[in-house]
Amino acid sequence: MCAVVGVFGSDTAAKIAYYALFAMQHRGQESSGISSADGEKIRLIKNRGLVTEVFDEESFQLLEGRCAIGHNRYSTAGKDSVLDAQPVFARYKLGEISVAHNGNLVNKMEVRNRLIERGAIFQTDMDTENIVHLIAKSQEDHLVDRIKDMLTKIEGAYCLIIQSRSKMFVIRDRFGIRPLSLGRLPDGGWIAASETCALDLVDAEFVRDVRPGEMLIFEEGKEPVSEQIFEPDYRPCAFEYIYFARPDSIIDGKNVYETRVKMGHNLAKEQPADVDLVLPVPDSGVAAMGFAEGQGLRFEMGIVRNHYVGRTFIEPTQQIRDLKVKLKLSPIKYLIEGKRVAIVDDSLVRGTTSRQIVRMLRHAGAKEVHMRIAAPEIKFPCRYGIDTPTQAELISTRYTPQEIAEYIGADSVGFLSLDGLVDALGRDRNYSLVSFDGNYFAGGCTESPSCGGE
Amino acid sequence: MCAVVGVFGSDTAAKIAYYALFAMQHRGQESSGISSADGEKIRLIKNRGLVTEVFDEESFQLLEGRCAIGHNRYSTAGKDSVLDAQPVFARYKLGEISVAHNGNLVNKMEVRNRLIERGAIFQTDMDTENIVHLIAKSQEDHLVDRIKDMLTKIEGAYCLIIQSRSKMFVIRDRFGIRPLSLGRLPDGGWIAASETCALDLVDAEFVRDVRPGEMLIFEEGKEPVSEQIFEPDYRPCAFEYIYFARPDSIIDGKNVYETRVKMGHNLAKEQPADVDLVLPVPDSGVAAMGFAEGQGLRFEMGIVRNHYVGRTFIEPTQQIRDLKVKLKLSPIKYLIEGKRVAIVDDSLVRGTTSRQIVRMLRHAGAKEVHMRIAAPEIKFPCRYGIDTPTQAELISTRYTPQEIAEYIGADSVGFLSLDGLVDALGRDRNYSLVSFDGNYFAGGCTESPSCGGE
Amino acid sequence: MCAVVGVFGSDTAAKIAYYALFAMQHRGQESSGISSADGEKIRLIKNRGLVTEVFDEESFQLLEGRCAIGHNRYSTAGKDSVLDAQPVFARYKLGEISVAHNGNLVNKMEVRNRLIERGAIFQTDMDTENIVHLIAKSQEDHLVDRIKDMLTKIEGAYCLIIQSRSKMFVIRDRFGIRPLSLGRLPDGGWIAASETCALDLVDAEFVRDVRPGEMLIFEEGKEPVSEQIFEPDYRPCAFEYIYFARPDSIIDGKNVYETRVKMGHNLAKEQPADVDLVLPVPDSGVAAMGFAEGQGLRFEMGIVRNHYVGRTFIEPTQQIRDLKVKLKLSPIKYLIEGKRVAIVDDSLVRGTTSRQIVRMLRHAGAKEVHMRIAAPEIKFPCRYGIDTPTQAELISTRYTPQEIAEYIGADSVGFLSLDGLVDALGRDRNYSLVSFDGNYFAGGCTESPSCGGE
Amino acid sequence: MCAVVGVFGSDTAAKIAYYALFAMQHRGQESSGISSADGEKIRLIKNRGLVTEVFDEESFQLLEGRCAIGHNRYSTAGKDSVLDAQPVFARYKLGEISVAHNGNLVNKMEVRNRLIERGAIFQTDMDTENIVHLIAKSQEDHLVDRIKDMLTKIEGAYCLIIQSRSKMFVIRDRFGIRPLSLGRLPDGGWIAASETCALDLVDAEFVRDVRPGEMLIFEEGKEPVSEQIFEPDYRPCAFEYIYFARPDSIIDGKNVYETRVKMGHNLAKEQPADVDLVLPVPDSGVAAMGFAEGQGLRFEMGIVRNHYVGRTFIEPTQQIRDLKVKLKLSPIKYLIEGKRVAIVDDSLVRGTTSRQIVRMLRHAGAKEVHMRIAAPEIKFPCRYGIDTPTQAELISTRYTPQEIAEYIGADSVGFLSLDGLVDALGRDRNYSLVSFDGNYFAGGCTESPSCGGE
Repeated sequence: MCAVVGVFGSDTAAKIAYYALFAMQHRGQESSGISSADGEKIRLIKNRGLVTEVFDEESFQLLEGRCAIGHNRYSTAGKDSVLDAQPVFARYKLGEISVAHNGNLVNKMEVRNRLIERGAIFQTDMDTENIVHLIAKSQEDHLVDRIKDMLTKIEGAYCLIIQSRSKMFVIRDRFGIRPLSLGRLPDGGWIAASETCALDLVDAEFVRDVRPGEMLIFEEGKEPVSEQIFEPDYRPCAFEYIYFARPDSIIDGKNVYETRVKMGHNLAKEQPADVDLVLPVPDSGVAAMGFAEGQGLRFEMGIVRNHYVGRTFIEPTQQIRDLKVKLKLSPIKYLIEGKRVAIVDDSLVRGTTSRQIVRMLRHAGAKEVHMRIAAPEIKFPCRYGIDTPTQAELISTRYTPQEIAEYIGADSVGFLSLDGLVDALGRDRNYSLVSFDGNYFAGGCTESPSCGGE
Repeated sequence: MCAVVGVFGSDTAAKIAYYALFAMQHRGQESSGISSADGEKIRLIKNRGLVTEVFDEESFQLLEGRCAIGHNRYSTAGKDSVLDAQPVFARYKLGEISVAHNGNLVNKMEVRNRLIERGAIFQTDMDTENIVHLIAKSQEDHLVDRIKDMLTKIEGAYCLIIQSRSKMFVIRDRFGIRPLSLGRLPDGGWIAASETCALDLVDAEFVRDVRPGEMLIFEEGKEPVSEQIFEPDYRPCAFEYIYFARPDSIIDGKNVYETRVKMGHNLAKEQPADVDLVLPVPDSGVAAMGFAEGQGLRFEMGIVRNHYVGRTFIEPTQQIRDLKVKLKLSPIKYLIEGKRVAIVDDSLVRGTTSRQIVRMLRHAGAKEVHMRIAAPEIKFPCRYGIDTPTQAELISTRYTPQEIAEYIGADSVGFLSLDGLVDALGRDRNYSLVSFDGNYFAGGCTESPSCGGE
Repeated sequence: MCAVVGVFGSDTAAKIAYYALFAMQHRGQESSGISSADGEKIRLIKNRGLVTEVFDEESFQLLEGRCAIGHNRYSTAGKDSVLDAQPVFARYKLGEISVAHNGNLVNKMEVRNRLIERGAIFQTDMDTENIVHLIAKSQEDHLVDRIKDMLTKIEGAYCLIIQSRSKMFVIRDRFGIRPLSLGRLPDGGWIAASETCALDLVDAEFVRDVRPGEMLIFEEGKEPVSEQIFEPDYRPCAFEYIYFARPDSIIDGKNVYETRVKMGHNLAKEQPADVDLVLPVPDSGVAAMGFAEGQGLRFEMGIVRNHYVGRTFIEPTQQIRDLKVKLKLSPIKYLIEGKRVAIVDDSLVRGTTSRQIVRMLRHAGAKEVHMRIAAPEIKFPCRYGIDTPTQAELISTRYTPQEIAEYIGADSVGFLSLDGLVDALGRDRNYSLVSFDGNYFAGGCTESPSCGGE
Repeated sequence: MCAVVGVFGSDTAAKIAYYALFAMQHRGQESSGISSADGEKIRLIKNRGLVTEVFDEESFQLLEGRCAIGHNRYSTAGKDSVLDAQPVFARYKLGEISVAHNGNLVNKMEVRNRLIERGAIFQTDMDTENIVHLIAKSQEDHLVDRIKDMLTKIEGAYCLIIQSRSKMFVIRDRFGIRPLSLGRLPDGGWIAASETCALDLVDAEFVRDVRPGEMLIFEEGKEPVSEQIFEPDYRPCAFEYIYFARPDSIIDGKNVYETRVKMGHNLAKEQPADVDLVLPVPDSGVAAMGFAEGQGLRFEMGIVRNHYVGRTFIEPTQQIRDLKVKLKLSPIKYLIEGKRVAIVDDSLVRGTTSRQIVRMLRHAGAKEVHMRIAAPEIKFPCRYGIDTPTQAELISTRYTPQEIAEYIGADSVGFLSLDGLVDALGRDRNYSLVSFDGNYFAGGCTESPSCGGE
């Protein structure tokens, strides 16, 4: 996961980057960073925490210049330190460079080992460090050629924003796995961001998506130059539509909200439930609405989400039943009592939370609880930037839906089929469906080391 | 607004109070406090901040005893200090006392002036201090009689939790304006809390609502004693149902969620809108759903709420259009573009935010924007515990719906009628409708000083 | 202990108060507060923490007006809460009032009980609250008369700064137990502060000490009015000279530094030590220097103080010998090894720390360790504002110097005699020597409840 | 400046490192870090802030293993970021490595440029990164040989603690410029630390100083191996004795305190002052005492240091004279008034603070003020780890003592001669005197880029 942004040719580049990162906070809450360049020097501020915690007014006095790139990092429990924030800055032969990366390089360890063999040092676990090394090690005279050189050596999913002291490079892998959109700011500057919701917040006009395999080069006083580096083989990641992107974003030309409604419709066709009521797991409401509509069932916002869940947690001294889930979610009993309910979620990974939700609904008096998942069974770890657990932890690799139903205590469990998903997304293009079909088209396999989720 | 809780007869009283306050955080985010009593001493921790910020594990080593009372305070901008947190603790003639109060005393200034005249000092602006003074000044020998004495001297809305070193008193004004429910804990202890959602979180069984005019007395080793202090005249506050209480709470026997759906239904009947689409203002989704259903219109969650709105705010250096509302809310353009939309909110006070939302929808391409409010026009300041602005600031005191439509830029504005509201709430009892009808049945008037929202 | 300050007639009153409190931080580190008055309103900021932690630039936008009073509170472990900060503000019959108090009222509990009997409530343990109550309860028409009325009802040690919306009152008890100096600011304003070091920092010219039993009244557009309320009986507290005041302060006309040197001289005469070397306990260097000089012995700064002692403490997992004292103090071994050393401290209360220091010196190789105390044996709890433990905890009430030497592991222990102390202070006036002679001239006795140290 | 520590063969290695860093906090307050190794993995915690701020109890659950190395970093204003903390950790060909460095490499830029030329990237400004790169780039098969290889490529001052997953290497440059002592822990483990005061705090027995040009290798289950890598040419840095080290430390066999007293003695011989009184600038008291003793003059602690100087600073709105120096230091007027005083400081760099101190003393009534400096004139920037300004900013490069006296407003200024300094340090060995004599024996010159003070 993670979010990237690049702003070029704006007098308030760093602040635009800040607001763009704010709009994309849902893509990563662990750490945040912005580097700016003024033609002579790159300056960087990054740290752990939310965008609003890392930056203050003073930050923007330091982050001068008409180019700024930024990054939000997703939390990957137990592995992060203050050093793992992005962008990654370095001095190298041609001067200074800063890199922000969203994606996952499947040949990270091979590249890293090769570099280490040749004497490189790695100060973090981030594959972004690979990218900087490859650029620095290239024998080419110009940064643009070094970048191309680097691109021939990496495999996997990537959206890259690279900043030198005077230029900005925006690159998307040839599959276009992770999203990246281009916009124009009211002051004439350019912005590239992971999601269109970032463009909307800063009043940027959407221009187009960055093309798979494309590199855009921004230089002061010139029009952006586009270069098609690789033959495109468009396969945007289905997970962006399923739950990762914000519903108001348009990913590669398709409205996220709309695809979610359709997933619900198709789920209703494939896995109807004979129930009185459809409830969404909060934040998965759109697909649930589609599911209810598809079957002509009553839809109710029957589970309330607590907005004040904090970071600290006081241990209860006596047992409170299912406390952790109840601190976040509360059922509306009168709706549920004595009813047969369908509960719709956007994915089912380990089953732990689903189990607690089902128990909560039973305790609220539900007569039957049918779990419906608006996505297919996840059977393979993603290697392209979605933080999924190892294959062994994926419940669907070990159990059938019926067995899962038993495990989580539901009367039934139904998943959307792969075909139903593809139908909802639209049959006009291919998608990255690796978690569902195990087709590691961009390299990597189930045995790859787990991705860093960058 | 604000929340109160009292726990009696539980070995983990303070922690139960903590979780109850956590569940009621939506009723007040300014400050929080818990005092506990162990038969010999009352101990108090209170401070500014959310429940999770004020307390840590160490707090509960101090807060010993089988009785604990707590309070969340609503933010009333510019007036609060660290001193304005509750409960209010005092030493007085009979020993120690701690008081938590939700409501508003309409004769606060008269009482205060009378007390000051007689030599009392007031260290805060809170009317809770009045209550403690009145108890301390009473000539009665027993606390229970002093409390009764005090109750004859105050007017307005109140739910009171009073703690001595060994007893707890739970009191509700004779109108039952603010909610207060009684529950039984799994360990046999008792809990009284503003909302049933607090009972649910701590696995307490709902027993009944505290009756208007009732005082409950808790003493170790005895059954709770109920005393009807005043002739009841039940008039629960309509605003709890309209937007203040959590939708999973049951206020005075009525499901909050259910009443909100009905308000939407009645609004649809009274103020239908010829539109393609109904959108909720986020967090007002239930009434919007009812409205859509009532007219058979399409309902869409077409406005996304940003979950990461923080406290700090970086000034933009160049103009970003409607930044403040856009940091919180984002429209899903493709749904709205070219459409006639109805937007449903739960109340309209000053019109400022509505204006920005309408502009945002227009900018997203809406062909028509019809604003529907699932509550009547607010024409009078509440004096009974809801923080409404002065009469002059209430837009409905100066403008007709049509004029408001013009002001906020909508094609039309429609309010639920008072009768429609009452119908939704149920005609089996009276309600506090003072903001709508100006009937200050519990004292106070439009010229009263604005309530402190305690 | 504690510090008070009052500033009147200065356009930057609150900032002057801030710097004065900063200069007097050594008198109290628990909490700090400033209230300001602009003729119409009193505003107050107070909280736990050092002066530099409680206030920021924003504070001074709130604290408007040409009069400001302030307070630093001494930490009395386990008893403080955010509520126990001063000044104490209250609304009462004549308007608004704010009070800062340094001292201790010996009849606090009697007054408090009398007030409580009459219906008063006490929200804190501070005797400052008594003072506010007594003013509010007075039947007089004018504040000045109410203050006089209050003064007839309190006994003990007090320096009071009282602020109404337009006046400031500065009062010292008739014994002048705690210090209070008057100065003139460069801009013509007035300042009263516990110590002259506060005057020095803000460039105020020292005018004179406030007289015992005097009240000074400040009013805009008038010269300060002095009124002798009580017959003076001058007895400044000896402890200010012994260790409490800053060495650059002049307390009641005597240089603190000078008296400390003389205490050392007299100690040398009375309790000579046959040693090679004199070492001060850091922060008691002046008396140690005097002691060495008095005997013609070598003085060495042989114990180093760590400036970075923080608040957090990591538990050692293996035993480190005398860790707590070693985190603060380190001996210079080569000086001490094989030597007979005298170590001079300014007082000996419980003996716990002395014991660790002696052990540390022995471990550093000292052949003999002789402890000398530049003050008499503390045999009685102070009731006049110095935070001493109960009589039972005072080691000198139970043990002779020889027994103390045994307890702390020293070869000998010697105290300054009472006469030696008085000689050092000067025989031109009486002193409060209560901790040494048990003469509770201002009321109170050994059985009084321990003072709050305000 | 900065401090390093290495602990090997102790079950509580990380906590020992923590306390050692605490004892050496005076060598660097900007940031702090500890890495630990358990044979299989290196773990690292580092951040900005004091030792007590960076680490908490939880830190030591992560920092497992019987080897830990640590670092305190000195603040070099405006250049630091969270990334500039040490130790520097990296993965490289032979596994994992962590390096802590105190000193300054004079050929840092040459090495860096050469490395960059060959494709290396530098993520920070620290020369520690050079060291890690050189080790990683070496073609040797074993770490020990790679380290030796690296050592042939760096010049300047360094004390290095290098940690692999199972070994620890302790290295000192052949001049022994920066101090490094070896000790034995009570549990049999080993500790190497910049100053002996760190050994004292953790009850380690001093074994010996690490020899110039020596490398010590620690491996579990074996005795430490010593290897003399370079021909030693012992020249410890004079500044450690002059002011940098803690007075209770023994640097290379000489007591810091003792040398400071002798510097005072020699200064008295060379630059006597006809005065009534000698005053130390606080924290330079030892040399001042020696100076007074040398001349038989009266010594007084006539300037008080404020212990509560915080980080925040409130702007005064009206002018307070010399506020910044007065917030830290206060003169004892009665001692100074009408007197001829000598004020002794440990060095004079820019003259700015001296000027304020002289003005403060004059304002306190001094008749004459004679400044004496217990060190020679600083005419050259240090390149070996002491953070001195550029040559142009050093006042002694532009002015004679007489001109400096004029500039700072003193009646005279006198410096210790180079010979007097060497005499005080002892003529049994050479010293690094580069700031005084410009003999850049270990490389570097006045035109070198200013050192990073690592």
